[in-house]
Amino acid sequence: MNSPSSLEALVQALRCLPGVGPKSAQRMAYHLLQRDRQGAGRLAEALKQALERIRHCERCNNFSEEPVCELCRSPRRDPTLLAVVETPADLLMMEQAQCYLGLYFVLMGRLSPLDGIGPREIRLDRLLKRAQDGVVREVILATNFTVEGEATAHYIGELLRTHGLKVTRIARGLPVGGELEHVDAGTLAQAVRERRDV
Amino acid sequence: MNSPSSLEALVQALRCLPGVGPKSAQRMAYHLLQRDRQGAGRLAEALKQALERIRHCERCNNFSEEPVCELCRSPRRDPTLLAVVETPADLLMMEQAQCYLGLYFVLMGRLSPLDGIGPREIRLDRLLKRAQDGVVREVILATNFTVEGEATAHYIGELLRTHGLKVTRIARGLPVGGELEHVDAGTLAQAVRERRDV
Repeated sequence: MNSPSSLEALVQALRCLPGVGPKSAQRMAYHLLQRDRQGAGRLAEALKQALERIRHCERCNNFSEEPVCELCRSPRRDPTLLAVVETPADLLMMEQAQCYLGLYFVLMGRLSPLDGIGPREIRLDRLLKRAQDGVVREVILATNFTVEGEATAHYIGELLRTHGLKVTRIARGLPVGGELEHVDAGTLAQAVRERRDV
Repeated sequence: MNSPSSLEALVQALRCLPGVGPKSAQRMAYHLLQRDRQGAGRLAEALKQALERIRHCERCNNFSEEPVCELCRSPRRDPTLLAVVETPADLLMMEQAQCYLGLYFVLMGRLSPLDGIGPREIRLDRLLKRAQDGVVREVILATNFTVEGEATAHYIGELLRTHGLKVTRIARGLPVGGELEHVDAGTLAQAVRERRDV
């Protein structure tokens, strides 16, 4: 005896969510049908709306409902600075840190040759065109300090420099409030190598 | 600067899923919009279909697309046996163990006074009516061996016995604190074979 087919279809469909296996998908489906039908309805509608409305901003490549997003259109941002981040979540973190008033380019990924993600997959041609608009004076590489993030920063740095652009990388070092005793050796070594005049 | 409103609505809506907090919801939304728009579309449709079609079977209370589900309508099942389980997942485990050919009643929950779930919330009146159809000869309590599952079995046992029904409990072959959904089929089959009077 099987579950009703629309229930099985729902369990299957839930598996498109990252980190959701067969058991979690089943638990989620039962929960929605038994205890939160209203939430399930809202989720279906939110998915539909988001799929219809969300596109990529033509300038920064971030998710946007307009051709050019609110941030790129803002007259309060400094158009001579362009920060390159991996994901929309990274952009939000930069904004929350309130440390940066320039514009962004969101890669929507990182170089990862082993996964078949090369310069073409993360649209570096678009970044190159964006950075060469004649207004941008400095490109700040704000990709993660992971192996892939570092490789991506290195590759983009080389690419943009050959086109005569000024490229910088956000600093590596101890976190604010960090203690030498508790930081990992690699970070400490980096912080010593990249010491600066005070 | 905020995310587009339909993206924020999607992140919010994903939080109706059990075990999904703000960070996971954001990761899921980005994943769907960036890498699996097809999957997101299928999920929206599956939710809609399931909400429209899935009801509770009038006899066993399990999820069903028909007024009376396929299992309850089957002429191959023994209508003199009625197993009481907590969830549809438990029923599926019983079926997979291939140890039982009677019918079921799915509580869709368990007694849990601390959470405000009493006999009325799990519709024990419907179970009582179902068990008194004149055909059922034995009610097998197959709730979990957790504190709530045991309390539920005890309560139902008392209730049905006062109405002159024979009530048995699946054997404590399961580990204490174990849940039907996660036990191996052999152990579960053993527990059904060794059910005892309560």
